[in-house]
Amino acid sequence: MKLATFEKTTPIGAVRRIGVVHGDQIIDLNFAYALYLTEQNDPRPYEMAGLIVPPDMIRFFEGGTASKAAATTVVAWVVERLADKVTITGARGETIVHALDEVKLLAPVPEPTNVFATMNSDRHMLNGLEKFGLGLPKAWHDTPAVYRSTNSGVAGSEDPILWPSYTEQLDYELECGIYIGKRGMNIPVERASEYIAAYTIYNDVSARDVLKKEISLYTGPAKGKCFANSNLMGPWAVTPDEVDPSNMRMVARINGEVWSEGNLNDIHWSFPQLIAHISKDEMLRPGDFISGGCIAFGSGLELDRWIQPGDVVELEIEGIGVLRNRVERRRGLDGVE
Amino acid sequence: MKLATFEKTTPIGAVRRIGVVHGDQIIDLNFAYALYLTEQNDPRPYEMAGLIVPPDMIRFFEGGTASKAAATTVVAWVVERLADKVTITGARGETIVHALDEVKLLAPVPEPTNVFATMNSDRHMLNGLEKFGLGLPKAWHDTPAVYRSTNSGVAGSEDPILWPSYTEQLDYELECGIYIGKRGMNIPVERASEYIAAYTIYNDVSARDVLKKEISLYTGPAKGKCFANSNLMGPWAVTPDEVDPSNMRMVARINGEVWSEGNLNDIHWSFPQLIAHISKDEMLRPGDFISGGCIAFGSGLELDRWIQPGDVVELEIEGIGVLRNRVERRRGLDGVE
Repeated sequence: MKLATFEKTTPIGAVRRIGVVHGDQIIDLNFAYALYLTEQNDPRPYEMAGLIVPPDMIRFFEGGTASKAAATTVVAWVVERLADKVTITGARGETIVHALDEVKLLAPVPEPTNVFATMNSDRHMLNGLEKFGLGLPKAWHDTPAVYRSTNSGVAGSEDPILWPSYTEQLDYELECGIYIGKRGMNIPVERASEYIAAYTIYNDVSARDVLKKEISLYTGPAKGKCFANSNLMGPWAVTPDEVDPSNMRMVARINGEVWSEGNLNDIHWSFPQLIAHISKDEMLRPGDFISGGCIAFGSGLELDRWIQPGDVVELEIEGIGVLRNRVERRRGLDGVE
Repeated sequence: MKLATFEKTTPIGAVRRIGVVHGDQIIDLNFAYALYLTEQNDPRPYEMAGLIVPPDMIRFFEGGTASKAAATTVVAWVVERLADKVTITGARGETIVHALDEVKLLAPVPEPTNVFATMNSDRHMLNGLEKFGLGLPKAWHDTPAVYRSTNSGVAGSEDPILWPSYTEQLDYELECGIYIGKRGMNIPVERASEYIAAYTIYNDVSARDVLKKEISLYTGPAKGKCFANSNLMGPWAVTPDEVDPSNMRMVARINGEVWSEGNLNDIHWSFPQLIAHISKDEMLRPGDFISGGCIAFGSGLELDRWIQPGDVVELEIEGIGVLRNRVERRRGLDGVE
């Protein structure tokens, strides 16, 4: 399933929902399930749908295998009706199936509980550190290199890349990330894949000049990685049954031209290894996001090519889709409230 | 005001509330305000109290100056009644004033939106890096050294320090931190103090052997600082009108013996400077926590003295109080769910 969070404009304002992408349509999971229950003469279809397939991605993940099974069932049920050209409207008149281009896709989890970013490709690390005049750290490969990035700076596909006021050198990073589906601490590596709810595309937008300076401070990336819309995720998240993390082609295109090309298998620590590491004596929770890290040659830094305002950055991962964002020069956003 | 989050055991389970500490008592702010409105013949006292003085610290901060003013008014009103020995019970029979020893204090904000930790004392940094065989980074003082720590690992006074399974060398850090009271981006330094809701004591518990290894990875502190109960805060948070951040004595005692002594004025970047820095192009929100960083000689690392299971660690800051935690060897917590 391609799980998406979307916003629909209505006479009472924009409403946030979750859905499953099917071709060029999106199925509203919660409303679809309420209709499914209504037709089964369930006495409380909306209440039950709210519990079993809630319209919020983190709450949906929290529902675990029961919620996922209900979603799978109802998607098949809707798809069968769509094939039969049956019109599908909820008992209260709500739209069950939208055209994808009539909704706004948000990041699959608009505000992840945590955003764990990693430096995880030997070649990317060597390439980048060389540009910064630094060498590979002694402890490299002893332990995964993980830090927390901003969760207030998360945005989705088609949202703008907002050029921060304090950088002259903005960059993209071609990454694949996962969402955690259930709570766990000290998760053994051999059970860690049970904790993966879905995979998504991640553009870890970076202010390189800032990063170059702060990376030596022993506190890791901060303003070089954390600003409004610096963590782009989407356009949707794909459940593990539909992807093969041992072999996923990844491409970055700038204005349609391929700049970066590679494969997820370039990363050193696997997602299960990262989960086991991060969850040591620390609770991982539904809605936590963990990136696999930028792959080799997955950034402009490594190529000495730099994105500029107006450029369109597309990251594509085989089996997921395309995350597309345009770089905007920021205007008059001071934000003091 | 000394603002606290507390838990009270009731016949329907433990209930989480916020209050103001007054001597050895704690005033339930929300219930006190409901009673105050009841006596003023407000037609909807509980509903209004829920909006103006909600029983959750982050929501209380979100109420801004109106909520703070209402709290100040109602605390004065309750204190006057206490002086007159008037019994105070809510219209629905609820307790307005508890003895402090009859409630469990939690961290003032049990789950901060973000935990921003800093390395911010020249002497602490020099002392610590020397022990690690490292020097002061070139960019030191060019920009504050800030990273995000765990918010799922936050605990309060009297909660145990849980010795992580993966360290042989646990340490305390004597720090003072603030909570952010309102949303803001690109906050100018001269207005930044408006964004401080309250000050609290912070023990940034650290696994030194782990930290020593991971600090060279360019991703900053991770498992060395992030684990269950690694971020101890409390016992309450004090509003800015009651403290002078330019001069606050700070002491760490282990089993009653003074190990560390210093002053908050040892930190290099002030809280307003840290707020201005972190909020550059990035939204700060109510419930975000920012530490001023460990002060000089504020850790066992700097003294080559090490806490052990069974030890009681007390951090005291003038004008705030004492944060007290006992070190426990962890038993049988694997946590896989």
